[in-house]
Order: sequence, then C-alpha cells, then structure tokens
Amino acid sequence: MRRVALAGTGLIGGSIGLALRRAGIEVRAFDRDATRAARAKEIGAVDEVAATLPEAVADADVIVVAVPVAAIASIVVEALDAGVPAATDVGSVKAPIVAEVERIRPDLAPRFVGGHPMAGSAQDGLDGADDDLFVGSTWVLTPTEGTAPAAFGTVRTLVATLGAEIVAVSPDHHDALVAVVSHVPQLAATTLMDVAATSGEQHATLLRLAAGGFRDMTRIAAGHPGIWPDICVANRDAIVAALDEYVDALERVRGLVAASDRSGLLDVLERARSARRSLPVGTPTGEGLVELRVPVPDQPGVLSDVTTLAGQRGINISDLEIAHSMEGGGGVLVLVVNEDADVDGFEAALGERGYHCSRTPLP
Amino acid sequence: MRRVALAGTGLIGGSIGLALRRAGIEVRAFDRDATRAARAKEIGAVDEVAATLPEAVADADVIVVAVPVAAIASIVVEALDAGVPAATDVGSVKAPIVAEVERIRPDLAPRFVGGHPMAGSAQDGLDGADDDLFVGSTWVLTPTEGTAPAAFGTVRTLVATLGAEIVAVSPDHHDALVAVVSHVPQLAATTLMDVAATSGEQHATLLRLAAGGFRDMTRIAAGHPGIWPDICVANRDAIVAALDEYVDALERVRGLVAASDRSGLLDVLERARSARRSLPVGTPTGEGLVELRVPVPDQPGVLSDVTTLAGQRGINISDLEIAHSMEGGGGVLVLVVNEDADVDGFEAALGERGYHCSRTPLP
Repeated sequence: MRRVALAGTGLIGGSIGLALRRAGIEVRAFDRDATRAARAKEIGAVDEVAATLPEAVADADVIVVAVPVAAIASIVVEALDAGVPAATDVGSVKAPIVAEVERIRPDLAPRFVGGHPMAGSAQDGLDGADDDLFVGSTWVLTPTEGTAPAAFGTVRTLVATLGAEIVAVSPDHHDALVAVVSHVPQLAATTLMDVAATSGEQHATLLRLAAGGFRDMTRIAAGHPGIWPDICVANRDAIVAALDEYVDALERVRGLVAASDRSGLLDVLERARSARRSLPVGTPTGEGLVELRVPVPDQPGVLSDVTTLAGQRGINISDLEIAHSMEGGGGVLVLVVNEDADVDGFEAALGERGYHCSRTPLP
Repeated sequence: MRRVALAGTGLIGGSIGLALRRAGIEVRAFDRDATRAARAKEIGAVDEVAATLPEAVADADVIVVAVPVAAIASIVVEALDAGVPAATDVGSVKAPIVAEVERIRPDLAPRFVGGHPMAGSAQDGLDGADDDLFVGSTWVLTPTEGTAPAAFGTVRTLVATLGAEIVAVSPDHHDALVAVVSHVPQLAATTLMDVAATSGEQHATLLRLAAGGFRDMTRIAAGHPGIWPDICVANRDAIVAALDEYVDALERVRGLVAASDRSGLLDVLERARSARRSLPVGTPTGEGLVELRVPVPDQPGVLSDVTTLAGQRGINISDLEIAHSMEGGGGVLVLVVNEDADVDGFEAALGERGYHCSRTPLP
C-alpha cells in the first residue's frame, strides 16, 4: 500500500491520516471544508489536499470515506467511479450505506467494504486527532456476498496498518450490535444527564454530589452531538428495539426495588458485575497465533461467509489471504487468528457449513 | 482533634484511617471481622485494633461508622452511649439512619451527624484504600434541627482534615438527590451491562465491539454488588421515583428516534452535552474565600437551617465556627465559603429567613 485517499478530515479522518503517514504511506485528502483540509495538512495528517474527489483518488490504492453517515454512499460511488480499486468508510451504521451503494451502482458495490472503527475521543474534530487512536481497538468490517476478495484484502491491510483488530460481521448484524453497545448507551447517558440537569429545583447541589460513577456514566454525553441525529435516523429500527429491551429490563429492576427483593437485585448485580469484569480488553493478548487454511470454492459469498462466522465468535482476523489453487477454480482462504480465541467452535461451525480447515500454530 | 474511633475497616474506613494517620491523628478501630481489622493495622490504616466498640471509642473525639447501611444506627447508638462526644457515618442513605437513631435514643441523636462521602473506588474493600480518596471530593453532611453545634463542628473538622468539601443538606433531600446521581446511575449501568451480556446469541462479538463509551458507562457495574440491595431497600421510594423519571425520559427519546425527529434529538443531546460540560469538578477552584458572619439566636435548628440553605445552592462550607456572644443568649455563626459560589443568592435567602449577615473577603 503506497497511497491512500481520504474523504473528510475530522477526528477519525485526521487520526487515520496521522497513523498512515507515520507508517510511511502517502495520504491525499479531499474535504468540502477547505479550511479544515488545510488545517489537516498543517498538523501533518495529510501530505496533500486535493481540490476535488477524483483528484484525491488518482493513483490511490483505496479511499477511506470519513464523512457524516448521510453523505457516505454518494462519495463512495463517486470515488469508485473515478477508478479507485477499493473503498471503505467509517460510518457508525452499515446496512443502509451498503444498501445505498448497491442501489445506486450495483456494478461498483463489490469494491466497497463497509467499516466502523470502535474508537473515539471525548474531543471533537481534528483537534482530537491522534495517530494512536486505533491501536488495539476493534474495527468492524462488513463484507457481503458480493464483496470482491481483492477489495477486502486491501481494506484489511489498511486497517491492520492502523493497529486495529478486525472483526467481520454482516451489515445488518453490525447495526443490531452497535445499537446495543453504542447507540443505546449514548442515548442512555444523554438521558441520564438530562434528567439530572432538569430534575427538581436544586441543580447546583445535585451536580455537586455527582461522584466518579456518575461522571463515568455521562462522559459520552459530552461528545459532539451533531453526528447522533443522523445515526438515530439511519439505524432507527435497531435502536428502537434495543431501547425497548433496555426499558423493559429497567422496569424489571424497578419491580425488584419496589418489592424490596434483595436476592433478585443481587442476582442482577452479580450477573452484570461478572459480565463487566470479563469484558475483553481492546489490546491484543500477546498470545500465540494459529493459521487456519480453508479450501474454498471460487464463488461469491465465500469470503463473507467465513469471515462473518469468525465475527460471530468475536474472533479477530489478524491476517487474511486468498491463495488461489494452480489447478482449478477453487482456492485456499488463509486466516490467522489468536490461539486463545474460540478456534474450536469456529472450526466446528465451518465444518457444519461444509468448510474443512487445517490448523497450524504459528511460531 | 487527637483521636478518632473507626467502626468498620473496608474501603472507606481504611481510606479514612490512612488519611487521618497521615494528618497525625490517632486511629483506633473496631471491626467485627478481626482478620480485616488486623490487615488494616498491617497496611497502616489504624494505630490500634480494639476488641470492643466501647474500647475503640474511649477518649476518642469522634467515631466514624463505616459499616453496611443496615448496621449503622445500632453502632452509632452504642458508641454515643459509651460516651464519645460525636458520631458520624458514611452510609449511602441518610433519612432512615437518622430516623432510626432518633427513634432508639432521642437523647443521643443530637450528637450524631449523618455523612456521605461522594467518593469510591473500582477496587473492593481494604485493598482499594487510599489516603487521597477524599481529597477534593464532596462530602455530604445532614444536620437536622436537633443537631448539636459542637458535634457538627467536630465532624466538619474531621471531614475537612480528609481534604473533602462539605455540602450540608437535610437527610430527606440527600436521599432524593443520591437516588438521581448515584443509585439510579448504578442500576442503569448494571442493567445496560446485563442487557448487553444476555442479548441475542452473539455475546462474544457484541462485547468485542464495546468501545470506550460503553466501558465508561458500565464501569460502576464492576463494583462490589453486596452493598446495593441494602441501599435499594433503604432508599426504595426515592429510587423508584427517580427510576420512573428516567424511564419516562427514555420513552420520550425512543419516541423521537421512532419518529426520526432529528431536531428533537439534537435538542436533548445539546442540552445534555451542555449540562455535562458544566458539571463542576470535584477539586477546589483555588478562588478566594469569603467569610460570612451570621448573628443567630441560640435555638434549635439554626445550624441545620443555615447550612442546608448553603447546601441547596451547592455551596461548599470551607470552614464553620459558632462564636457565642458574651452578652446574651445568641451567637454568631461564622461560615467560610468560596467567593465564586452563589454567595449573593445565599445572602438573599438568609435575609428572607431573617438572618442578616455581613460578608468579608478573606486575604
């Protein structure tokens, strides 16, 4: 990878630019806001600012579209149409964007791989940009049946260069998952802060009593609000479903409190504590790696099939390569994963789908 | 202050012991769990372990009761009955404890001042003890009409020695406020973690996607669950009311999402962001101090009246002294508060209650 095009130079775009340039990759950016683009160059996040999107993608290996959700699909299509071999984005919602690209230009869609870095900063915009923002974090990719292996490989390399770990899931599944771990938490924190700020007459005292736990819980409410209305609209159904689940669970807890049910409360508290304590940390474990070689037929959907089976088990794909067989239509998909992941379960699931893989520990 | 008795040597008791000993004050502790008490001595949190509560309070200026909520009132009464001049506690709920002490021994109740440090640690028990735990944090005291000024003064000095800022409110008011900023947030975080951990079939993936915001929001769910059932039972009504308010607010947000109401969502997000950003930080501002001298009649309730008027405005009482007049029944209550607090509003409120104070900036 020699040259990456960047559309959008905010917090995420700027951080990607900084990290890529540190890795010796040339970054050419386009941003409708010329002042911001100039500032991105000033802080070293981009090598060159292009005046147009086609100019930004000329000779680039891939484009990263880091603009608000509502604007992503059209920029992806324009960039692919201008000839860039692969495109990805960093939007917080995936299914509507993937569907929109497929709808506008089904011929270009195989070269687009939806992406979503699960990292952020409490600081807004370019000022929060950090070349270490993605190191050890999880980055979701959402290949589909139609995704071209070459485009997936390019995007995978890009993300690995940024230091993130890749989890592949389907676009729909991504949206349901982030509704639970990202969108509803954001709305829950916002609502909690709002209730505290508008409750009763003694705000000053109330807020003086807000200790560390309350501060932790409401920290994300201090983030830039501008991106959230679009996300809520784009992922409406999944968010409403997850909010309903959350409210139902709160009503059950309310029932336990109202009934002074100590043991029922303790059950919920213990279960949550145990789950929170086993929350995987984002940094790599440093454990050994395992190479899985999966003979695959040369047909659409195999790549997304295998990678999303890994994603369903939370397995990070450390490396991925498609080795085409010399003698026939098929090939071998080579995956490198952590040996402490649920490799057995993954192998069994692959077996059920008719994929029989061989496993080799890497030195 | 020369000697402090401590009942209970967990996280809070241990941290109080460490901080007091650092300040050169002798700490004598009693704990029903002799092993824990011995460990507290080992880590330097106490000078001496007493075999009984009366032995712990002998010659002490004050006792701090740092035991679970359900056990506080009886220990307070036993200690006061044994002759200690003043008692305070660190329970997360105040009204039921204050009422219980008044019910058992109304004659001793004036020497008890309820307390609640708004500080904690993600680490359980004595191992999380830290002599800096309270520095710059807020510590609520809940004097009542019957509180003896001398006992309040002793407890105030104790808390100031620990580096905390004092806010005085009534016991009932405390309970309503902490339901909003502490108890409901704890239950909201617990429930959010529980929903994520038990939602759908793909836990592993879901939890891999949990980025910083989710981690922040659920951090308090990792804390020791044992204290919460008692707190929920003791503060049931206030918690149920605050939970209802929270659920109602979540339902309104759900309605905005379902209706794709971008501007309605943005309003809530902006309001919460602004409130979160103006959340006062716990550390002192370093601003100047103002001395307020309030001539007061020598009658019950004056102290709680004046201090809770300050508390209602979130005003920290940096220092407090009662200067008795030489010539008559009344006296002067001397308060030192931050000059950047709402001193004007406080003065006005005092005036409305018939207290006319003079204000002097301190050098």
